[in-house]
Amino acid sequence: MAQLVVTYRTPTDIAAFDAHYRDVHAPLAKAIPGLRRFEVTEGPVLTPEGPSDVHLIATLYFDGLGDIAAAFASLQGQAAAGDVANFATGGASMLMFETREA
Amino acid sequence: MAQLVVTYRTPTDIAAFDAHYRDVHAPLAKAIPGLRRFEVTEGPVLTPEGPSDVHLIATLYFDGLGDIAAAFASLQGQAAAGDVANFATGGASMLMFETREA
Repeated sequence: MAQLVVTYRTPTDIAAFDAHYRDVHAPLAKAIPGLRRFEVTEGPVLTPEGPSDVHLIATLYFDGLGDIAAAFASLQGQAAAGDVANFATGGASMLMFETREA
Repeated sequence: MAQLVVTYRTPTDIAAFDAHYRDVHAPLAKAIPGLRRFEVTEGPVLTPEGPSDVHLIATLYFDGLGDIAAAFASLQGQAAAGDVANFATGGASMLMFETREA
């Protein structure tokens, strides 16, 4: 299994971010070909010391890294990626990797 | 479900890190009470632009944030946390959160 993890730092307007994410961005992301599962954080993202500067983490699951590359190249992937600038006012970073049971 | 995500930046000696992680740290982590699943990255951790400064991401799954707090407070959790300084020469950061299907 492979994951594309999108980490959104706290935006300037949290309510606007949440509404755009729910109504616009999540539907765009769900349309990405090859997507197996799509999870988001619910509630606060914490560090061991307390609050973090992260507002939301989205994890998109694919079969492998090649499927993530294909997703980025797809029209649906480009639409979702292009939408990030419309709401991620705190910035967003992406990591992608394959995982195994430890 | 809740996740404790540990992100290890690239260490000075990758082979030594990998050996310590496999032989010492992973067994310590597996002993943590309340742990439901334990996954690590396999192969490179990439950004959309190419390589990242991350060597390994470990994701520990628990039932909820309260179980992660209890895990940190346990003897096994303290042993695992205390071991991080023994091999994470590139530094490590931790985030914890609950997730839901998007």
